[in-house]
Amino acid sequence: MSQSLSLFQMHEATLKSAIAAIHDRGFWTPYPEHPKAYSETGDEEGKAAFSRMMNEDFKELLQEGEEGFIGEEVSPYLQLGLGIRYPKFSAETLVTRASEQRKAWANTDKDNRAGILIEALNRVQSRFFEIAYATMHTTGQSFIMSFQASGPHANDRALEAIAVAYDEMSRIPAEKEWVKPIGKFEIRLDKNWKAIPKGVAMVVGCSTFPTWNTVPGMFASLMTGNPVIVKPHPKAILPIAIFIAELQKVLKEAGLSPNICQLAVDVQANPITKHLAEHPAVQIIDFTGSNSFGEYLESIPGKTVFTEKAGVNSCMIDSVKELAPVVQNLAFAISLYSGQMCTAPQNIFIPESGVKTPEGVISYDEVVKALSDAITGLVNHPKMGAGTLGGIQAEATFERVKNASSLGGKILVNSEAIVNPEFEGARVASPALIELNASDASTYFGECFGPVAFVIKTRNSEESLLLMKEAAAEKGAITCAAYCTDEAMMEEIESEMNEVFTPVSFNFTGAIFVNQHAAFSDFHVTGGNNAGNASFANPDFVNRRFVWVGNRRVK
Amino acid sequence: MSQSLSLFQMHEATLKSAIAAIHDRGFWTPYPEHPKAYSETGDEEGKAAFSRMMNEDFKELLQEGEEGFIGEEVSPYLQLGLGIRYPKFSAETLVTRASEQRKAWANTDKDNRAGILIEALNRVQSRFFEIAYATMHTTGQSFIMSFQASGPHANDRALEAIAVAYDEMSRIPAEKEWVKPIGKFEIRLDKNWKAIPKGVAMVVGCSTFPTWNTVPGMFASLMTGNPVIVKPHPKAILPIAIFIAELQKVLKEAGLSPNICQLAVDVQANPITKHLAEHPAVQIIDFTGSNSFGEYLESIPGKTVFTEKAGVNSCMIDSVKELAPVVQNLAFAISLYSGQMCTAPQNIFIPESGVKTPEGVISYDEVVKALSDAITGLVNHPKMGAGTLGGIQAEATFERVKNASSLGGKILVNSEAIVNPEFEGARVASPALIELNASDASTYFGECFGPVAFVIKTRNSEESLLLMKEAAAEKGAITCAAYCTDEAMMEEIESEMNEVFTPVSFNFTGAIFVNQHAAFSDFHVTGGNNAGNASFANPDFVNRRFVWVGNRRVK
Repeated sequence: MSQSLSLFQMHEATLKSAIAAIHDRGFWTPYPEHPKAYSETGDEEGKAAFSRMMNEDFKELLQEGEEGFIGEEVSPYLQLGLGIRYPKFSAETLVTRASEQRKAWANTDKDNRAGILIEALNRVQSRFFEIAYATMHTTGQSFIMSFQASGPHANDRALEAIAVAYDEMSRIPAEKEWVKPIGKFEIRLDKNWKAIPKGVAMVVGCSTFPTWNTVPGMFASLMTGNPVIVKPHPKAILPIAIFIAELQKVLKEAGLSPNICQLAVDVQANPITKHLAEHPAVQIIDFTGSNSFGEYLESIPGKTVFTEKAGVNSCMIDSVKELAPVVQNLAFAISLYSGQMCTAPQNIFIPESGVKTPEGVISYDEVVKALSDAITGLVNHPKMGAGTLGGIQAEATFERVKNASSLGGKILVNSEAIVNPEFEGARVASPALIELNASDASTYFGECFGPVAFVIKTRNSEESLLLMKEAAAEKGAITCAAYCTDEAMMEEIESEMNEVFTPVSFNFTGAIFVNQHAAFSDFHVTGGNNAGNASFANPDFVNRRFVWVGNRRVK
Repeated sequence: MSQSLSLFQMHEATLKSAIAAIHDRGFWTPYPEHPKAYSETGDEEGKAAFSRMMNEDFKELLQEGEEGFIGEEVSPYLQLGLGIRYPKFSAETLVTRASEQRKAWANTDKDNRAGILIEALNRVQSRFFEIAYATMHTTGQSFIMSFQASGPHANDRALEAIAVAYDEMSRIPAEKEWVKPIGKFEIRLDKNWKAIPKGVAMVVGCSTFPTWNTVPGMFASLMTGNPVIVKPHPKAILPIAIFIAELQKVLKEAGLSPNICQLAVDVQANPITKHLAEHPAVQIIDFTGSNSFGEYLESIPGKTVFTEKAGVNSCMIDSVKELAPVVQNLAFAISLYSGQMCTAPQNIFIPESGVKTPEGVISYDEVVKALSDAITGLVNHPKMGAGTLGGIQAEATFERVKNASSLGGKILVNSEAIVNPEFEGARVASPALIELNASDASTYFGECFGPVAFVIKTRNSEESLLLMKEAAAEKGAITCAAYCTDEAMMEEIESEMNEVFTPVSFNFTGAIFVNQHAAFSDFHVTGGNNAGNASFANPDFVNRRFVWVGNRRVK
């Protein structure tokens, strides 16, 4: 273990800074988010490495004895299969191998685990460009979003999970002499406390954020001593496969089995997620995806389940200092990755009496026109449009936006097939903006995943708030944006939305967007409403992966 | 709020000491456990106060508009109904009133909540003797156990829950400026984080430890801002009614509604627990009781449920320094409150090859005889027997021990009706000790609540350990005792039992017993096996009662 101990020594300063950061919650990261901070030739090399991987079997993993190779990823940009196949294992084989590693990984102390896991993140860092192209051509994200979300921001979330777990596991002393005075004498006991890992963990990935949404659960379970099986979405495997390959190499070098973290691959026609999830040895499940599958997982008895499902995110506009920066910010938040972020706003509540400004009220119609124009202007901007929108990951999302007119209401902005000059055949759709009345809740209370947003005309801001709160309470919400310059009203909005466990972002303009949740500061999903039962990464996110057990000895 | 703020100032030092104690985990308590530490006339006054309560309606509560008065408590010592009736409210009324208090209690900040709750504990302290008699005559515990468990030890657990909750709620900063450098400029956000209470909480009490098992969930839910409905066992109401009455008085004095903590009383023929538990507004449930009801509560979708159910606690004897103190300690652990503690050992595994000592091996038969003699000697001891055993709380338990001979195996010690000189009609039963073979797992893997213990003859200590582990894994276990003088074997026992989330107490002799779990040091129940899903009071015990929500404002 001397090598992994030295890994801990190598990375101890990073770990300590990360732990300080989760308590401080100001800005911190060891992974710069801009590609320019990395190698000058990185982009070219990454693209070349990705190209070499296409149409080949992925052989970097150290999992042995596969039953064959499978894979069916399709690039939303190229509209072509990537042709990459991954080793196939049965659910039983994966769980058996993970179970075999329980003791060895549990007995690897938390310093050694932290050293190994942070080392893996450092090696992943050297492959950020490759991972970016892998993400682009599975999710349809733009290059820059792919780079940031799947690279530095994912590493941030992974390191955050490691730090929160290490911190929680350090809160109870490892041992203590207990001395109880009883009259003239004392009872003395030697006590110890151990954080016992719960068992085999699995992480079920999603198709839109294949690393960012997967690594928190993966690294939280690993850091707390549980072997992990990662089951990515069958259409978005490569980005996380690279993470796992790097981790497996570090595990092997540390004298441990690569089976401590395995990749589980399936195809849509023959899914293995339920087989894994229902296996009695699987104790912990992390999931990002649909409400129906998330609720099924949550209902399996005896499992510890962490979910991020879908919600309905809202925005209300009550009053602004200046309208233009507000509609520009909102247009970007709606258009970014064509509304395929779990944090994208869907419902924009605007009072029929208009929006207050220091220069007087701007009428409802003017506000709606300004927002519509901002969206149209952004998506058609030759330098901004295609890059902001990216591609549509799934055919079902594309169909949904094509049928947006059937949802009722008045179409304010049509969804358009913006041409991406780099990938002319790409599946692209700009947001449709549809006007509804407050009474159309049956439409706008439903999640309409992808590039569809609704403007809802309300009687006044009180009704806007009421409807935002109801939507979050009933359907769940991950975010909420509010534009308001009145302090008392802001407090009311914050109090009401927080009561349904929804965070509020006020008056976002400029280069900050409601869609973004920064590691080491923002919790992602609160865990309190139907949008998910877990939060990246509060103490609960790690504490439920292990059990405190205390032992006592008479001296 | 100035009064409750001053309550915080009055109790801040206690709170800080309690928080230090949960991190230190050495011995600490502000509530001395011995009656002699309190008023000299306290015992007499407490007994008189209890007597005055009998055959009267309990009118100390500040809950108004009751639908009548009900109550059916019976003293196991007197074999007489106490004749005390409590105000009756429908489940709907209780939940509506609790819901009405959500906002007011959530908006009472954590300092004020802590001040109010610790003040209530201090007032309860002045009623420890009354509570002791109330506990004696509902549970059948001896006076001294009633005093300690329902008085100082319960207050310890309540204060521990307050301290853990306060500590957890203080871990994320209330606010922080977030400054993200982006190239030549910076993004600045004002952020805040709030611990939002989940909603209405209920606590379901048990018949044997009506305050000790109730106050952790009650004070954890209250401290995290949730109004609480306490639903005690219909046969053990009075002890916790006194706690609630004192708390309601403090709430009222602080300008808050007593409905922030309500007592819910029912009778066995007309239970209301399911009505309360299934009410959509009830978000948090704490429960101590049977496996079947605990599993029903755990299965209600969308609730946060904390359970202490039943398990099978084991003991193995491998090797000892000296046999006599071991069998004396075990005899006491088995006999104490006639095995009605959730921590009492049921299965004693002894290898057929005997028990090793520095003076050579003591044969299996000799060990069994020594244990049998120790039990017989203890229960028949004129000064020790009746006081150690106490009374049998429930008729069903009494029936079970009467039928112990039908369980099979060889009766080593018969259960006897020891006469309690103070209460000649008391329902008393000393432990039956029954010898079984290792192959009789179908008998000894079942929980046999009350004064029945099994000696199980095993091939060797390896088999003892294997069976202890299996019993804990399958049925759950709260404790485990091991007598072993070999360091390598001790480590093996600890590792194996910890793997099934069961704590081990090694070589307990003298005045410390496996049954005892001390607040501010020992977790009670690990939450990792079928004996319960929660632990008094690890961070998880409080964190799951509230949700972290973060808000952001552009500056």
